Amino acid sequence: MASETVSIIKSIYADNNSIAAKINASFTARKIFAVNVLGAPGTGKTSVIAGVIARIKDRPVTVIEGDIESDIDTKLFASRGVDAFQINTHGGCHLDAKMMDKALAAHPLRDNSVVFIENVGNLVCPAEYEIGEHMKLLVVSAAEGSDKPYKYPLAFQKAGIIVLNKADLKVHVDFNDKFFYDGVKAHNTTAKIFEVNAKKGDGIDALAQWLINVAAH
Amino acid sequence: MASETVSIIKSIYADNNSIAAKINASFTARKIFAVNVLGAPGTGKTSVIAGVIARIKDRPVTVIEGDIESDIDTKLFASRGVDAFQINTHGGCHLDAKMMDKALAAHPLRDNSVVFIENVGNLVCPAEYEIGEHMKLLVVSAAEGSDKPYKYPLAFQKAGIIVLNKADLKVHVDFNDKFFYDGVKAHNTTAKIFEVNAKKGDGIDALAQWLINVAAH
Repeated sequence: MASETVSIIKSIYADNNSIAAKINASFTARKIFAVNVLGAPGTGKTSVIAGVIARIKDRPVTVIEGDIESDIDTKLFASRGVDAFQINTHGGCHLDAKMMDKALAAHPLRDNSVVFIENVGNLVCPAEYEIGEHMKLLVVSAAEGSDKPYKYPLAFQKAGIIVLNKADLKVHVDFNDKFFYDGVKAHNTTAKIFEVNAKKGDGIDALAQWLINVAAH
Repeated sequence: MASETVSIIKSIYADNNSIAAKINASFTARKIFAVNVLGAPGTGKTSVIAGVIARIKDRPVTVIEGDIESDIDTKLFASRGVDAFQINTHGGCHLDAKMMDKALAAHPLRDNSVVFIENVGNLVCPAEYEIGEHMKLLVVSAAEGSDKPYKYPLAFQKAGIIVLNKADLKVHVDFNDKFFYDGVKAHNTTAKIFEVNAKKGDGIDALAQWLINVAAH
């Protein structure tokens, strides 16, 4: 890459992180707890969020949906009475702090709320951009196979919590538990890990309780 | 984005496409047929490639594996006697034409061969970069759900062939055939579509025969 390109890319990260830090400080001051939900397409990010927020009873909840195009999941949440709004990146492979800043100006959050930001489905790029969150929640699907930590290390490194969803599909895809957990541990020894089936609700109580506790502190 | 940034991004695409065009012309002149295999992490790109190449009997075959890190799949192919080599992007979310150019200089392909290039698992960025291929093969997994064409349109638009893998998992994930196929048709009316289970071999004969015929012309 030309040095001019490298310096512009560095400046893109620096600009992004500076805006993200401001958003994060504002959230913290207003007792808003923000979770950046990462994962490849179709791992069940939406179902995990839906399961968790149904168990949050004592604080306001907002869901921000990030998608390249469409507003399928925002409509789903709205139809259930959840405060939800959409950010479309129109081709962009991740949310960034500028998009968040603009969206938050148009849709202010409530003090003391918990906000889940569902990033664009992509196990690579979203992990590189801070968007003001307090924690990254990574959703992986058992159907993706057990080698993902080795192939996509950054998302596993940066996650504060890792949710292995569709755990019931393990038997159909020769999922290797040891290989998966060894891979996770090689990149991240502190993340809390939950195995769930979000659509059926299996494991969601424990996941939600853990998040509720973290959000309270 | 600043206009300087926009112009550099435009120039990145133009540089890339110019190199890709040269690679493509060289492939064509040497009767090499190149397939760029796209898809999200864990959709079964490697298994689809393995199934197809086992059925190619009359031409040399090479597999180029694109991964951020690791060489798990290259080792797998090599252990089976397949000519395979690795491109690691070390953080990069897609293969580009420069990486291909460099790799091909180190590992020249054989005349009249068929080459499968497994891109980084990512349903977004790889669709934006030509790498010298004659055709894009998109692998999606039934376990990802049926809404992917709506959320990730570019990969579906650019595919010459779409493989719906892990079709046996449809029943476990409420896969909606009509919604999926309506979404595909909204973006692409010409792509050939196959439903398969690559690990079990279901549907691979027809897929391989179609690709063998295309590669011969």
